Amino acid sequence: MSSTVQENRPQEEQPAYSIIGKRVRKYDSLEKVTGKAQFLLDIKLPGMLYGKILRSRYPHAKILRVDASKAEALQGVYAVITAKDTPKIRFGFMKDNLPLKDGVVLSCRDEIAAVAAVDEATASRAVELIEVEYERLSAYFDPLEAMAPDSLQLHEAAENNVAKIPFSFKAGDPEAVFKRKDAVIAENSFKVHFMTHTALGTMGALASCDLEGNVTMWTNTQAPFMYQRELADALGIPGERVRVIQPYIGGAFGRGMDLYPVDVITALLSMKTGRPVKIQFSREEDLSFSPTRQPALIKIKTAADETGRLLARKVEVYLDVGAYVSWGAFDARVMMATTSGQYRMENIQFNAWPVYTNNPSSGTMRGAGNPQINFAIESQIDMLAEKLGMDPVEFRLKNANHPGDVTPQGMRITTCAMEDTIKLAAKKIGWKGTHREGRCRGIGFSTLFHVAGGARVYRSDGCGAILKIDDFGKVTIISGASEIGTGSDTAITQIVAEELGVPLSKVELLNKDTSVKPWDVGIHASRATFVGGNAALAAAKDAKRQLLRLAGRELGEDPANLDIKDGEVITLDGRKRVEYDKLLRRAHFRQGGSMIIASAFYDPPTEMSNPDTMYGNISTTYAFGTQAALVEVDPDTGKVSVLKVVAVHDAGRILNPNGAEGQIEGGVVMSLGYTLIEKLLLDEGMVVNPSFADYKLVTTLEVPEIEVEFVGSPDPAGPFGAKGLGEHGCIPTAAAITNAIYDAVGARIFELPATPDRVLQAITDRENLGRSS
Amino acid sequence: MSSTVQENRPQEEQPAYSIIGKRVRKYDSLEKVTGKAQFLLDIKLPGMLYGKILRSRYPHAKILRVDASKAEALQGVYAVITAKDTPKIRFGFMKDNLPLKDGVVLSCRDEIAAVAAVDEATASRAVELIEVEYERLSAYFDPLEAMAPDSLQLHEAAENNVAKIPFSFKAGDPEAVFKRKDAVIAENSFKVHFMTHTALGTMGALASCDLEGNVTMWTNTQAPFMYQRELADALGIPGERVRVIQPYIGGAFGRGMDLYPVDVITALLSMKTGRPVKIQFSREEDLSFSPTRQPALIKIKTAADETGRLLARKVEVYLDVGAYVSWGAFDARVMMATTSGQYRMENIQFNAWPVYTNNPSSGTMRGAGNPQINFAIESQIDMLAEKLGMDPVEFRLKNANHPGDVTPQGMRITTCAMEDTIKLAAKKIGWKGTHREGRCRGIGFSTLFHVAGGARVYRSDGCGAILKIDDFGKVTIISGASEIGTGSDTAITQIVAEELGVPLSKVELLNKDTSVKPWDVGIHASRATFVGGNAALAAAKDAKRQLLRLAGRELGEDPANLDIKDGEVITLDGRKRVEYDKLLRRAHFRQGGSMIIASAFYDPPTEMSNPDTMYGNISTTYAFGTQAALVEVDPDTGKVSVLKVVAVHDAGRILNPNGAEGQIEGGVVMSLGYTLIEKLLLDEGMVVNPSFADYKLVTTLEVPEIEVEFVGSPDPAGPFGAKGLGEHGCIPTAAAITNAIYDAVGARIFELPATPDRVLQAITDRENLGRSS
Repeated sequence: MSSTVQENRPQEEQPAYSIIGKRVRKYDSLEKVTGKAQFLLDIKLPGMLYGKILRSRYPHAKILRVDASKAEALQGVYAVITAKDTPKIRFGFMKDNLPLKDGVVLSCRDEIAAVAAVDEATASRAVELIEVEYERLSAYFDPLEAMAPDSLQLHEAAENNVAKIPFSFKAGDPEAVFKRKDAVIAENSFKVHFMTHTALGTMGALASCDLEGNVTMWTNTQAPFMYQRELADALGIPGERVRVIQPYIGGAFGRGMDLYPVDVITALLSMKTGRPVKIQFSREEDLSFSPTRQPALIKIKTAADETGRLLARKVEVYLDVGAYVSWGAFDARVMMATTSGQYRMENIQFNAWPVYTNNPSSGTMRGAGNPQINFAIESQIDMLAEKLGMDPVEFRLKNANHPGDVTPQGMRITTCAMEDTIKLAAKKIGWKGTHREGRCRGIGFSTLFHVAGGARVYRSDGCGAILKIDDFGKVTIISGASEIGTGSDTAITQIVAEELGVPLSKVELLNKDTSVKPWDVGIHASRATFVGGNAALAAAKDAKRQLLRLAGRELGEDPANLDIKDGEVITLDGRKRVEYDKLLRRAHFRQGGSMIIASAFYDPPTEMSNPDTMYGNISTTYAFGTQAALVEVDPDTGKVSVLKVVAVHDAGRILNPNGAEGQIEGGVVMSLGYTLIEKLLLDEGMVVNPSFADYKLVTTLEVPEIEVEFVGSPDPAGPFGAKGLGEHGCIPTAAAITNAIYDAVGARIFELPATPDRVLQAITDRENLGRSS
Repeated sequence: MSSTVQENRPQEEQPAYSIIGKRVRKYDSLEKVTGKAQFLLDIKLPGMLYGKILRSRYPHAKILRVDASKAEALQGVYAVITAKDTPKIRFGFMKDNLPLKDGVVLSCRDEIAAVAAVDEATASRAVELIEVEYERLSAYFDPLEAMAPDSLQLHEAAENNVAKIPFSFKAGDPEAVFKRKDAVIAENSFKVHFMTHTALGTMGALASCDLEGNVTMWTNTQAPFMYQRELADALGIPGERVRVIQPYIGGAFGRGMDLYPVDVITALLSMKTGRPVKIQFSREEDLSFSPTRQPALIKIKTAADETGRLLARKVEVYLDVGAYVSWGAFDARVMMATTSGQYRMENIQFNAWPVYTNNPSSGTMRGAGNPQINFAIESQIDMLAEKLGMDPVEFRLKNANHPGDVTPQGMRITTCAMEDTIKLAAKKIGWKGTHREGRCRGIGFSTLFHVAGGARVYRSDGCGAILKIDDFGKVTIISGASEIGTGSDTAITQIVAEELGVPLSKVELLNKDTSVKPWDVGIHASRATFVGGNAALAAAKDAKRQLLRLAGRELGEDPANLDIKDGEVITLDGRKRVEYDKLLRRAHFRQGGSMIIASAFYDPPTEMSNPDTMYGNISTTYAFGTQAALVEVDPDTGKVSVLKVVAVHDAGRILNPNGAEGQIEGGVVMSLGYTLIEKLLLDEGMVVNPSFADYKLVTTLEVPEIEVEFVGSPDPAGPFGAKGLGEHGCIPTAAAITNAIYDAVGARIFELPATPDRVLQAITDRENLGRSS
């Protein structure tokens, strides 16, 4: 895997940074590679009990009777709880869920009872001893089926089983465009499936209550302060009674956005027993009972004029939210933004129906709807190019976004190197035009548009930071921003070290405990480095001001004539220089001494979309990219081999090329699985392949050559010019690959994953079509 | 035990505080009384090893050979270290100590080797297997003996075994006064003994090293940032590599000021094994190998004129520092301050000789020299009063300190209610004059003078504080100040709650981790509430400013017209009121949102004494007090029963009467042991009564009625007027009791403890004296 970091501005204009832009190792790498890092799985508190959950046997049923007496009588069992032991407060994105279900179960994941026992085996045995009597009800496993007029209504507030969330947007008049004579139109349906996060750290929680009624939670959440508020609400206690500790997190990928029944149940068991209680899913439980990427049926119609200028797009999405609505429902909003914003276009119609079914609840996952909609849009872009007789690269270039554009939803594009990403991807993959790669080989492209400067999906988009410097010159940054493995901690320490002019090794970051760290909305929308970085930068700027003021006093110089570099305070003329830590000690160890403590709260200038018009500049800046895939298809088996992926991304200034490349590569590999092999198989709403033997992941053997390139200029709003990039690598991969399959064998993939049987079927369909036409 | 809180100013002038001055329960009481609080003893890390130390068999010897091969071969042993495995960096107050001794041992406490093993039993067994060959040397167990010209020199830098610390002070011309015809003179020698801290949490440390070379220490230190610096120096690593966590501390009483060999050894064992290592002393080890209160021989000569005005005092102190010098040597400076400052006097001479012996090293203990010197001074005050034919209460009143006084050492007395304390103590104990209590009953008095507004014994006397407020209105104060059981945490939370106008339950205090908390010099000199409180107060004032600014914006009012009371922001005219947490949420959850983070570093305006002149206002303010004791002496057995103690203290405004009374009562009880029963018995430098069966403590059965009274006005420099009071209760108790013994049976006690045999001897001496005269 190779990489070059390119920028639009000539190299000689580049500021001479010491740490920004350098290849540094991840802040926590040593602890992680040596196994010293403590994950939830590793944490054991004195007197800790182990919990297990009894779930529904059926996807939809009335609970007639629960008898836990045998479980309660089992030696080693400390508590058994059912709905009657809970405050019955609804929680979740739409307040439609209960920690333990009361009367009716809506999916095979539904929690009926829970046990805390001296060890896991006892807890499991106790769960088996709980008797439940059910009355089965009709169940729906397809959104359209659930929407049918005669279907049972699963939730009181959801007529026709459609959750009441406003997901409609209209700009211009797409229908009028579709009627135009000169309009070249493509209209298709695409289907995306149940994929799951497969985080190596399985789901779970550890709760410990004290005698004041405080609950401390160890959890893999991405949004600890939201978790704090929601858990407190679900427990019926004041928010300040909940403290959230995030140990090292073994991957979250979006599923850490929601509060889950397991969190509330663990807290309830700890409250009931007065002891710490941990529930940690086994791998089987994790694959069976964790949220999934939002599956959807996407109907899409796009029109261009004969010159290839895009005119209008209409998208209808049916989301299978499962039994309860999660932040995954919000994926529709990201789909809407991409529908309206990716490529210049004036006429847009978007509608989404988040539909309750008796499937497992789907959550949100890296890219938050964008990988799904991108697959549909970018597949259709190629189909439309073919209809127009245009080169797909040319077609994309003609319609690319540009700096200064405002999308129909009001998203203001500032820095934007979309054109450069398309051109460089075509060049690097060796694009010579359609069907030029020889027998069964093909190249495909896909571009992307995504938020990259925060995203105001909640009333606050902010993050706090506190900074202190000790006598040894160690800089401690206490950041609100969470680290879930993306490398944001590394970037934040780089930002602080660069701004203060101190060695990177002098910067320590603390951000695992809500009782210590200042507020942050959570890590999502690729915002941690941008928002957390800007907060840390503001605190560092404040600290630098204080430090230069001290230095001015000590050196008898105007602070304006001073700077800090490589750990030394220097006069701008280079005449005087002194180690910064020595200065700090001089300022501290004397009468009337002082020490440096700084803080900041950064709330980006982002707007929440107007709930009626869906208009609003949701992010401070946006990122763009193009991926190109070279594939080979075996026409006899349908097996697709991805030979190479070129991923060209505009993410502003790259703070740490190692980390940035890792994020893009990881995204590509994750989407390789999404595109080709990963699928949760469901039978009557129950996962039937809950193991890594049956739920296949991409292994190193299947990873192709991935060439990562960065283009674009530093973003004026980003910390040192950085834009977000955590999700971007996974967004365009699917369409790039399926477009390449089409380029190779002329078979169009309308449903993921493109498994050999499905590719073979597409080849057969194409041949049949050829024969019949 | 009863108490009234009195103040000089009339009650109607008292500000109407909601929380200050109220009886609140201790901040950590619930965790402590239920056993949930985690002390060092309770902490167990994954993979943790247990360490044990091999100490010298002799008080003074050459080490000829150490053979650890059998210990190393023992199964379950992970590491054995001796001096050759250490960096041999000297540490300690005078850099005269090594973690493991190299060549020569100077006391029976001296560490020769240490072991880390899978459990304590294996570690103990391994220690027994280490063979050491010694060559015994002459040993000295008395300072005067050690100072003899023909004694062996124990430390290179210490001629005549006197440590080179400047402890001399002279003002006026005492010798000239002593020659005056009208001078009434008393001249005596007093002796104070080995007493130990008997903290319930035994000494020890837990060290855990990571792969970056960082060492995290869990320790009972009182001065975590000094510990950080000193441990790093002793290990030869940069200071920022050491992180110090203070779990709940089961008492420190001064012994937490120093770094000990056990700390360095534990870190070295963890570094060598790559695993966490804990060494926790057994009770026997704790009594045998922990520091003691500084024992001393005190020669004192005081002159008054015939009217009872004190003229001059000369004090010579011989301190037995043991084998190594600790912060205990600094006790001499406190003795000097009391010698020169307690009572108005112009002619002073003070000299102290800190002498190395082969006894166990003595440390510093609550009162830091003041309980020792107070016993001598206040015993002699009574003797002088008798010579003058004056009532001892009258004599004290005549010479009492007053506001505006500057002591010969330059200590500036601001608030001072010494007279009030004397008068009230006399009244409350029912003083009718000498020898008026009937047969074998007597009353004695003693006053005190002590720092109460920080104490600049190090280059910084400062403390930092960080404050954040969350969406629920919870105020988190991150304080540098340590809690060692004194109640300072409670006081600090009260200060923050009062200043911000929020309920006390809304304030959380974090101060157990140097990586999180800002710098503080440590808890000593009764400074935590004064200095830590002032730092917290400054941060709270900043936060209040921010909060009122926000509130002004939200309410459309000038912030100057707003205040916060009982959790509500109100206009001064009472017209508008709104909950402060609601305001905070409004300010946070919107575009351009903000949250409140504040910080402060408070360094009191204290001066380090000039090392040549010993002149300097070491504390911002000073505290005064008088204790009166009523005793009954059994003339046949010498047994002393203390029937009642009245303790009247001037500590400025009392923030929490519960806590303040507890501190005074605890001090009285601790000194009851010092005065009557507690003594470490040494045989050839080895403790021979290392158990609570043989080292007697005062139990509840021996605790007399203690009446605590507070007088004095709020100190303008203290947080809400508070002065320090943590040590004060223990300072005057001994002299009050021994003066009462004299009042009862005419027997003068010159050496502590006043055990029955010693009292009986004093009675016999008095009778013999009576017969022979």
